[in-house]
Amino acid sequence: MIDWDALTAELQGIEVISDPNQVAKLSQDYHTFSPILQAQLDGKKGDLVVRPTTEAEVMQAATTCVKYRVPVTIRGAGTGNYGQCVPLHGGVVLDMSRMQAIRWIKSGVARVEAGVKLAALDKKARETGWEMRMAPSTYRTATIGGFIAGGSGGIGSINYGQLRDRGNINAIRVVTMEDEPRAIELRGDDIHKVNHAWGINGIITELEIPLGAAYPWTEVIVTFESFMAAAHFGQALGDADGMIKKLISIFAWSIPSYFGARQYIPDGTHAALLMVAEPSLELLPGLVQEYGGCITYQRSQQDAGKGVNLAEFTWNHTTLHARNADPSITYLQSLFPADKNLQMVDHMYRYFGDEVMMHLEFIRVGGRTVPAALQLVQYTTEERLNEIIRYHEEHGIFIANPHTYIIEDGGRKVIDPEQMKFKQMVDPYGLLNPGKIKALMRS
Amino acid sequence: MIDWDALTAELQGIEVISDPNQVAKLSQDYHTFSPILQAQLDGKKGDLVVRPTTEAEVMQAATTCVKYRVPVTIRGAGTGNYGQCVPLHGGVVLDMSRMQAIRWIKSGVARVEAGVKLAALDKKARETGWEMRMAPSTYRTATIGGFIAGGSGGIGSINYGQLRDRGNINAIRVVTMEDEPRAIELRGDDIHKVNHAWGINGIITELEIPLGAAYPWTEVIVTFESFMAAAHFGQALGDADGMIKKLISIFAWSIPSYFGARQYIPDGTHAALLMVAEPSLELLPGLVQEYGGCITYQRSQQDAGKGVNLAEFTWNHTTLHARNADPSITYLQSLFPADKNLQMVDHMYRYFGDEVMMHLEFIRVGGRTVPAALQLVQYTTEERLNEIIRYHEEHGIFIANPHTYIIEDGGRKVIDPEQMKFKQMVDPYGLLNPGKIKALMRS
Repeated sequence: MIDWDALTAELQGIEVISDPNQVAKLSQDYHTFSPILQAQLDGKKGDLVVRPTTEAEVMQAATTCVKYRVPVTIRGAGTGNYGQCVPLHGGVVLDMSRMQAIRWIKSGVARVEAGVKLAALDKKARETGWEMRMAPSTYRTATIGGFIAGGSGGIGSINYGQLRDRGNINAIRVVTMEDEPRAIELRGDDIHKVNHAWGINGIITELEIPLGAAYPWTEVIVTFESFMAAAHFGQALGDADGMIKKLISIFAWSIPSYFGARQYIPDGTHAALLMVAEPSLELLPGLVQEYGGCITYQRSQQDAGKGVNLAEFTWNHTTLHARNADPSITYLQSLFPADKNLQMVDHMYRYFGDEVMMHLEFIRVGGRTVPAALQLVQYTTEERLNEIIRYHEEHGIFIANPHTYIIEDGGRKVIDPEQMKFKQMVDPYGLLNPGKIKALMRS
Repeated sequence: MIDWDALTAELQGIEVISDPNQVAKLSQDYHTFSPILQAQLDGKKGDLVVRPTTEAEVMQAATTCVKYRVPVTIRGAGTGNYGQCVPLHGGVVLDMSRMQAIRWIKSGVARVEAGVKLAALDKKARETGWEMRMAPSTYRTATIGGFIAGGSGGIGSINYGQLRDRGNINAIRVVTMEDEPRAIELRGDDIHKVNHAWGINGIITELEIPLGAAYPWTEVIVTFESFMAAAHFGQALGDADGMIKKLISIFAWSIPSYFGARQYIPDGTHAALLMVAEPSLELLPGLVQEYGGCITYQRSQQDAGKGVNLAEFTWNHTTLHARNADPSITYLQSLFPADKNLQMVDHMYRYFGDEVMMHLEFIRVGGRTVPAALQLVQYTTEERLNEIIRYHEEHGIFIANPHTYIIEDGGRKVIDPEQMKFKQMVDPYGLLNPGKIKALMRS
């Protein structure tokens, strides 16, 4: 039994939340997109939320949690979808969202604390001609630490690939969960010891994030009579080296029916939602015409304050909008093989029909434009969902399964031995996000 | 017989050069890189050089040349290598290099006159956070009009592909050679009617050129014990979506022996000359190490004023340096097929040995990183040169033959019918750059 009063006393000076409702709320993320995770994680919550504002406070919290052998689940804004912010065994929820200092931005690199919101960093960067290279659709609220720990890419990945690609993170600083916690700064290739590690490998306090040179982006909607014409257009725009873009999202009808006010996407048509750089607008109509599309909406950067951002309808916000309209909808996360002809996209689109609604997000993988997909699934049973996943995998489509909180089952199959070695060093008592790693489970 | 005095009189107000030495000099380009062109074009020159400073003067010159049915050969700085600035049938050399106005730069697009030097445009663009997307190694002297008319890509093509790729030119304005010359502005996809047309399709007076968001570039030399390790490194850097670069030039030994002072490239080693964005420097050593390379030189943007630009040793400046050391050297222009394993590069490197020294320039083609090559050839005979070219073509390597001034023989095989149609309209008397198009030659 943990003496919570004694533990709390040792956290003196740090904000601690013990109100059960608030603690329950801060033990949640958006795993509810998955009916399976929803059932598995129902009622799971921490005992206490701790909200440090400095690395010193993180050290103090780590020391205390190690001393009392209390599980620590780290959270940013809780916008993830995989239950990695949900404590399986109670303990402390370490909420990093108050650490919002932007230390510096120079020569295309930003040094930031883990709790900095992506939109805030982007805004600050743009003041000096830079911008975030990539961000999820939750960029308004998501934190950079949460994105690095739990995300993989997003809007901008059509240019820069994914977070794991060399060059997209320069440094990560973590506080360990040793008897005497240390702050360790990992630079260069060493960042992979903690990148995308779901808070199992130390507490991220600061990061150095390379930026992209900023463009004025125009948002564009293009509609198509045929879904595959829209998909081929997306591939062609991705492959058009002279056309600068940040987002190529392709939606099969009836996904656009979930977008609310949709005067720009007529019933039954398929849509491309784009962010295109201003200098590339002159040549866009020619490419659209080649694929039989129709530009129905255009909003320049100067008007960005007005109305809705198209980005809010893309990536996993698509799923959010669909579930708001129909809570029986869930989703997949897929990566199709590199193939300019998109044969597997075509096959899956026709094979599953309305049961698996096609939502493509074109990104760069290893120097090539490929469609990632966040297909919307009309959920019936877990068996059927697994059957759908299996069918994709049997056809060479990589599935990062968002319906499990077991890290190995989610996509990576085995945890990188370097990450496991680092974990053994920085978390000798296995207190960080326990219960999520199959390899560490005892029978 | 042309009445040159009468013609000159009608050019009143425009600078005209009639001094035979100067006219001969302004009838040249760098076709002398090719021993074959050198022999074929020896002694060819215009009768008069005309140097307009405004579009009105271009119109006046066009009117006059049409009236007297005088051939017109257009030139920028004469830095091309294909003899397209050399008049085959005398006439007027129209030197556009005095039209140097930069009309405006905004939102990533520059409106410029044809004679603007690439370095001047780049400098001006960088003042507002933009830069030229691509430029040849002759950027210090070359003009934008000459680059568009005669070039295909260069430093920066690893990001934006080639000039012909959609989105790299927004508009081209040309003056026609009709009885009553007009200025025609082509925008969007219509620019292909005059793009890369060697001055056969109208006189380019102004252009709108999309720019790239500017980066601080660091120049880097990496050396390798094995040429193929250097080549694979180049491919990997090209494919590394998170690593921002502008130049990936790979040289087999003994090419670096032609570079003069070379304390950074030990004898017998193979070299990569790079331009890498500052935010990507942190991660470069990891990639270099993976391929067994050694970083021997690094110069940041702040020091760009000091010493030599690496770019001056790349693209066709490599050929220039090699020929300065050994005038028997000539070159090829190749595009290898997309293949991450670089099997054909390996084959050609081993097959030809020192006779064809491998010089790769990685660029983007249709969304993929591929090696273009400007191999240095130890020239013996025209027959042997053609044999070398044929061997490459038979193995699926595209050769843009720089040893002919016949446009169809140079690479495109047939002239785009749209370009021919446009030529018939704008140059009804066939006065522009005559003798260079096979399809127009009468028996």
